[in-house]
Amino acid sequence: MNQEPSPEQNWRHKLYVIIYEADTRAGKRFDVILLWLIVLSVVLVMLESVEEINTRYHAVFNLAEWGITVLFTVEYVARIITVRKPLGYIFSFYGLIDLLSTIPKYLSLFLVGTQVLVVFRSLRLLRVFRILKLHQYVGESQKLMNALRASRTKISVFLFAILIICVVLGTIMYLVEDRESGFTSIPKSIYWAIVTLTTVGYGDIAPQTISGQFIASFIMILGYAIIAIPTGIVTSEMTRDREDNEVFDTQSCPNCSADRHPPRAVFCYRCGTRLNP
Amino acid sequence: MNQEPSPEQNWRHKLYVIIYEADTRAGKRFDVILLWLIVLSVVLVMLESVEEINTRYHAVFNLAEWGITVLFTVEYVARIITVRKPLGYIFSFYGLIDLLSTIPKYLSLFLVGTQVLVVFRSLRLLRVFRILKLHQYVGESQKLMNALRASRTKISVFLFAILIICVVLGTIMYLVEDRESGFTSIPKSIYWAIVTLTTVGYGDIAPQTISGQFIASFIMILGYAIIAIPTGIVTSEMTRDREDNEVFDTQSCPNCSADRHPPRAVFCYRCGTRLNP
Amino acid sequence: MNQEPSPEQNWRHKLYVIIYEADTRAGKRFDVILLWLIVLSVVLVMLESVEEINTRYHAVFNLAEWGITVLFTVEYVARIITVRKPLGYIFSFYGLIDLLSTIPKYLSLFLVGTQVLVVFRSLRLLRVFRILKLHQYVGESQKLMNALRASRTKISVFLFAILIICVVLGTIMYLVEDRESGFTSIPKSIYWAIVTLTTVGYGDIAPQTISGQFIASFIMILGYAIIAIPTGIVTSEMTRDREDNEVFDTQSCPNCSADRHPPRAVFCYRCGTRLNP
Amino acid sequence: MNQEPSPEQNWRHKLYVIIYEADTRAGKRFDVILLWLIVLSVVLVMLESVEEINTRYHAVFNLAEWGITVLFTVEYVARIITVRKPLGYIFSFYGLIDLLSTIPKYLSLFLVGTQVLVVFRSLRLLRVFRILKLHQYVGESQKLMNALRASRTKISVFLFAILIICVVLGTIMYLVEDRESGFTSIPKSIYWAIVTLTTVGYGDIAPQTISGQFIASFIMILGYAIIAIPTGIVTSEMTRDREDNEVFDTQSCPNCSADRHPPRAVFCYRCGTRLNP
Repeated sequence: MNQEPSPEQNWRHKLYVIIYEADTRAGKRFDVILLWLIVLSVVLVMLESVEEINTRYHAVFNLAEWGITVLFTVEYVARIITVRKPLGYIFSFYGLIDLLSTIPKYLSLFLVGTQVLVVFRSLRLLRVFRILKLHQYVGESQKLMNALRASRTKISVFLFAILIICVVLGTIMYLVEDRESGFTSIPKSIYWAIVTLTTVGYGDIAPQTISGQFIASFIMILGYAIIAIPTGIVTSEMTRDREDNEVFDTQSCPNCSADRHPPRAVFCYRCGTRLNP
Repeated sequence: MNQEPSPEQNWRHKLYVIIYEADTRAGKRFDVILLWLIVLSVVLVMLESVEEINTRYHAVFNLAEWGITVLFTVEYVARIITVRKPLGYIFSFYGLIDLLSTIPKYLSLFLVGTQVLVVFRSLRLLRVFRILKLHQYVGESQKLMNALRASRTKISVFLFAILIICVVLGTIMYLVEDRESGFTSIPKSIYWAIVTLTTVGYGDIAPQTISGQFIASFIMILGYAIIAIPTGIVTSEMTRDREDNEVFDTQSCPNCSADRHPPRAVFCYRCGTRLNP
Repeated sequence: MNQEPSPEQNWRHKLYVIIYEADTRAGKRFDVILLWLIVLSVVLVMLESVEEINTRYHAVFNLAEWGITVLFTVEYVARIITVRKPLGYIFSFYGLIDLLSTIPKYLSLFLVGTQVLVVFRSLRLLRVFRILKLHQYVGESQKLMNALRASRTKISVFLFAILIICVVLGTIMYLVEDRESGFTSIPKSIYWAIVTLTTVGYGDIAPQTISGQFIASFIMILGYAIIAIPTGIVTSEMTRDREDNEVFDTQSCPNCSADRHPPRAVFCYRCGTRLNP
Repeated sequence: MNQEPSPEQNWRHKLYVIIYEADTRAGKRFDVILLWLIVLSVVLVMLESVEEINTRYHAVFNLAEWGITVLFTVEYVARIITVRKPLGYIFSFYGLIDLLSTIPKYLSLFLVGTQVLVVFRSLRLLRVFRILKLHQYVGESQKLMNALRASRTKISVFLFAILIICVVLGTIMYLVEDRESGFTSIPKSIYWAIVTLTTVGYGDIAPQTISGQFIASFIMILGYAIIAIPTGIVTSEMTRDREDNEVFDTQSCPNCSADRHPPRAVFCYRCGTRLNP
């Protein structure tokens, strides 16, 4: 019981608290520094892609990216060392993100012209979620996720119906419209139907014939009206979530611990025991 | 009573269970295969429409389409044979869809250049709904349909008002705007009004005069604001639907007639009397 | 008391019932014919505006328009004769619409090139509302109008804030963006801000500089997020409207006739009288 | 106690009532005049920016702007003199707006080509809010602000997630799409992702490759579906706000402690006891 932790264990635990928790001052500072490093590294990725900026500051970007990569490597190793189950961490969602967002620079030593690695570097942004997870926002985003999860099936049905509508209407438009207007193939017409139904409306493909514009009008009004459906689903779910916590009383029965009593309840609805006032 | 079913009846019944139901293992497998066949056939229709792909793989597509058509024909015949009332099936919604989505390839033997048949082939996609109908999603999509059906009248009124607004505003724009901006006729101006009100905004027709842009701004803000109406209708309907069915029980206490008991209530929350089961 | 109506009065009353009411068979038929005449006349207006169609069928259109105008004139005179207070009708909203939608053709005899009269002719469409008013849809559209009327002040505040945001952001964009991108004046920039905030997005004016695209992104996300506000207002109002009729009991107090009692009410909240069970 | 106010104090107080309050006739007239002055000055700013109008009426605009500036200066000084704590006013939000919207014309005497001052002049529009604050609309806009404030955290989480989605999807599009389609850098691709997700869809940058259009379709449908989230948040908040404040009274019965009485309740609906006023 009074077993003293070995100095090494002690050191690892302290590091664990700093890296994985945010309740201590050092832990908070670690998170803030990491947050800025991530943002910095993503800004670097963006600037590098701008032709004029990259040609001028290429050396600076290269150096900065190496610095960030080394720091992320150190962090990755530290996370593996301090955690209780290293394999669990490595193959967890965030563990894989950490790895994928660290290796691109190393790979670029061996591979040439691998632009795809840029995406992995931008994946670093997902790490921001872990940091924020430990702080505020947890409760609110939890509620949002709950409402979305509860309406998952309804929304899938809706999206599925949308897709089928777009395929059928896209096919019809392919037949109705001129090839010159941009409706050169069915997949392209379906793409146009999605652009129109979601009210995005790029205008790179637009119907020119009268019948085409008539069908297009129908799709637009449809899209304008049925946006009410996902909105209705999510709103209904969110209102329910709130009501569940408020419309019902917070007390539970002293006998059978049933909860969700109406606000004015005097007796438990399940076992009939008189509730505490 | 103990009448043994004839071997033929037995065989037909087994096939019926496989084709029309999804509770058995064979029935499920049949549905999954059919689902993939439908998706495959629709993908074929799409690819065929892409000029470059079609010229290269035309023979393959032709063969695959024949294969799928034969399989669908077999299925269609099997459905007619096994069902109790063949005529009822043939003239049902899905019966017609099944027929229409099977015959195009046969017709193409006699008719030349009948692109319209492509639409019939894409109608196959509607058959997906029947398959999904038998599985999950039924309850959820039922609720969606109920909410939409209940708000049908309100939404018709809304759409009707939208159309009249678009006709009147389109006519005004036709007078106000230059013919060069694309407002060449009243139907085209009405089309533009729909494009604008639904916030699609292609940009192929856009007002150029100051007064035209002023009216356009009005239409946009109108469209932006009144989208609240269908949303409000559907949301209100969905919330009601949920409240009616889930939050409260419909029974009332036999002693004090208190109602709005929680769904699992056994005892009255007000007087403690045991509720009727 | 037993005063017999004069034959003329009798005749006028019968005509009144046909024209203004829809409960009799003749009244219903009158409304349906009128509805089709209106739709026909508006379709004529549209077709006339299409250059190619008009040059070919100009004579037909002219004749048809004269026929409709005469019929509408007859109807207008009949309405004045049969109604009890002719002046009240003439200066009512629908009275003015009736007049304005009848005279254009007569005016075209004296005036040349008066395209503006086309708008008056399209105003005929508004007359459709009167006809529908007499039939179904009354209750539903009434509820819609109630919800909108109740949220009028909130929506005005919202639209007003939108306009001010667009003016300020439009002015900023005018300074930030190049004149070549289309931001040639502040009114035009404000127009662009409205196009962007309402998520219409024509694309005829689009920011080209980085700072301009940054501000544009801000406006878009703002517009995307604050559409929640009118939706929230109207939905909230519609849910309340429904609840008012449902959450409260339908009974009224036998003593003081106060209504809107809670569902479980035993005593009147206003006078304390025991309510009928 | 009977201390007579000095004539000067009296004079200052009267002016204070006119300028800062709107209950007297003079105060109301002052507000209306100020409102029109502000609107006029903003209209001037707009017209000045239109090349053709400005070259013709430059002298008029200059004179009018000087007139307005002098009037605003007088008002600004009067506000400082009459208010009890001048420093508090000067450094308040509206105090700074008043100053910033007055000085541009004076600065233009010393500085040349300072277009930025135009923005300060358009800031005058914000002063409109103060005037309206004193009148109607206070309650309604207060409720709107409350609902928005209550859902602030949820909306931040939502916007934050939107931004990260746009960065990641923009980066992917940068890799997938041709440079010729307009996806010339990652920041530009992110800008495009925002344009698409918010369903604005300018069309100045639009995907041309099949994979690009596939990802674009995904973004559009995502944007179309998740607009339900802010809407759900605000609607849920507004419904709650209403329920809390309006549908039920906050008092409970002194005899049986029943709550949720209607707002005008005088007697308890359950036991008939007279409620405390």
